[in-house]
Amino acid sequence: MPEPVLLVLDTDPPPRLGALTGRVQVRHTDAAGLAGALPHADVLLVWDFTSDAVRSAWPGGGPRPAWVHTASAGVDRLLCPELAESDTVVTNARGVFEQPMSEYVAGLVLAFAKDLPGTLDLQRRRRWRHRETVRVAGSRAVVVGAGPVGREITRLLMALGVEVALVGRTARRTIHGAGDLDRLTARADWVICAAPLTPRTYGMFDSRFFGLMQPSAVFINVGRGPMVVQDDLVGALRSRWIAGAALDVFEREPLGPDSPLWDVPGLIVSPHMSGDAVGWRDRLGEQFVAMYERWEAGEPLPNVVDKRLGHIPSPDTEG
Amino acid sequence: MPEPVLLVLDTDPPPRLGALTGRVQVRHTDAAGLAGALPHADVLLVWDFTSDAVRSAWPGGGPRPAWVHTASAGVDRLLCPELAESDTVVTNARGVFEQPMSEYVAGLVLAFAKDLPGTLDLQRRRRWRHRETVRVAGSRAVVVGAGPVGREITRLLMALGVEVALVGRTARRTIHGAGDLDRLTARADWVICAAPLTPRTYGMFDSRFFGLMQPSAVFINVGRGPMVVQDDLVGALRSRWIAGAALDVFEREPLGPDSPLWDVPGLIVSPHMSGDAVGWRDRLGEQFVAMYERWEAGEPLPNVVDKRLGHIPSPDTEG
Repeated sequence: MPEPVLLVLDTDPPPRLGALTGRVQVRHTDAAGLAGALPHADVLLVWDFTSDAVRSAWPGGGPRPAWVHTASAGVDRLLCPELAESDTVVTNARGVFEQPMSEYVAGLVLAFAKDLPGTLDLQRRRRWRHRETVRVAGSRAVVVGAGPVGREITRLLMALGVEVALVGRTARRTIHGAGDLDRLTARADWVICAAPLTPRTYGMFDSRFFGLMQPSAVFINVGRGPMVVQDDLVGALRSRWIAGAALDVFEREPLGPDSPLWDVPGLIVSPHMSGDAVGWRDRLGEQFVAMYERWEAGEPLPNVVDKRLGHIPSPDTEG
Repeated sequence: MPEPVLLVLDTDPPPRLGALTGRVQVRHTDAAGLAGALPHADVLLVWDFTSDAVRSAWPGGGPRPAWVHTASAGVDRLLCPELAESDTVVTNARGVFEQPMSEYVAGLVLAFAKDLPGTLDLQRRRRWRHRETVRVAGSRAVVVGAGPVGREITRLLMALGVEVALVGRTARRTIHGAGDLDRLTARADWVICAAPLTPRTYGMFDSRFFGLMQPSAVFINVGRGPMVVQDDLVGALRSRWIAGAALDVFEREPLGPDSPLWDVPGLIVSPHMSGDAVGWRDRLGEQFVAMYERWEAGEPLPNVVDKRLGHIPSPDTEG
């Protein structure tokens, strides 16, 4: 029996795949070669998760990989109707990013509450200016996105004493449904987006939404850039509709030096790094090997994405 | 019976003392007038807690206040041998600063772990540069000072998943004694000073101490400035003995514009604000009124400082 073909979308080899040596034929491709290589692959590993090449290269019919794994939490960059309607299984990297992302969000919340950006700015100007800080304990957060990332953010903020409302697509147990979002937003100190990018969430954070927020409130996006109408956020900050914002994800990444976002007052811009704790690439490689071994043994795969929803359905959060 | 005389060390009236109207004669003084006013006061409220005027003005004998309350956690600025040996009761503002200070420290830990200063610096230069972050969960902290502030910092860092060793003067139950400090420091990722300034702690963080720390570790001081030998800390940072530091307190405050501390690589300088959450002055005023009402009624005062130790003895932490 020939070895299965593992096609890696990335020209560099991922780390920690050594255990697969002799068990798979590993082939590498870049975006340009993807369409030609896909019909000959059994498994596709989307290692360059910033690429959206799968969407355009996915074959409409004929031979194609039985399994596509992406080294990311979001699957928005690879899902296309042909892939969604095929019987190919899509899995993601659930489990790798949640804890670092939740710590990143907690760090941003505390940095705004304690005005750390102001402190660093005053330090550069050698100015001693005492300011009062905001208590995080007892403040209120809305976390949009009730998947693993949103739930871990909720857990960590609650550990800091924050009163958190977690909002998912549909209400269930301790999760609020999307219909509660406006009401919860109007009384929140922190609005945190950790939702998947889907047709339902595209552009949902717009002028109407920022107009619901308190003038003292802060918006944080660690989900996907296109959920935020960037111009509307810039307007809300410049008009002081809201007090601050932090974006780790953007409509287009990387952000070019000419982007107007770099110097908006009250906006913290970071380069899509919230989930990337030291060792994250090793963990992604190890995770893929463990999943491959299940696939090879004919066992059910974990982290299977519902291609219709655009994310993994959570039995305790989705109806 | 004449109304007791409440002497306030501050020329401005503290907030929230209205409930005492008609029950005390309130007199105000600055540092220059303190020595002349002390013999006529029943109670001294050290509202300007940045002043060390009490130390020089305290009468060696004769009439003096029966009770001195300071609107601060530390009593280092007012204790002198004559006051320590007198039967005057000294109380502090325990309960007002702990939670904000613990949040401030957690914010600094997360900011270093996620390189928020680097992110803000790159943002100013309009540069997109992805970096890997450090996981806070599972990292190790040493908190020096097992009083209410140190204990609250410990609680909050543990909520973030940090493995915390709390070090007090003497070992007791879950508290390590000072003899364990070197060993714990050598394996810590975060060393946090929240101890009172006493002859035992003066200058304890020096080159010898920083030489024990890991090169990847960070030092944070929210206690009192003179516990740190500032030149030694600057040397340790410039020589990369340690990765970073944050000082909220200094040998002399405020820090002048000529201080060499403002631009030391890896050092965050903030203006003694860690405990000052919005409303802190109101809370200090309310706390004093509640304590005054107990004193007036002849009930025992809370927050009584052991003038020999230089802080409130904690039954569960001090031998």
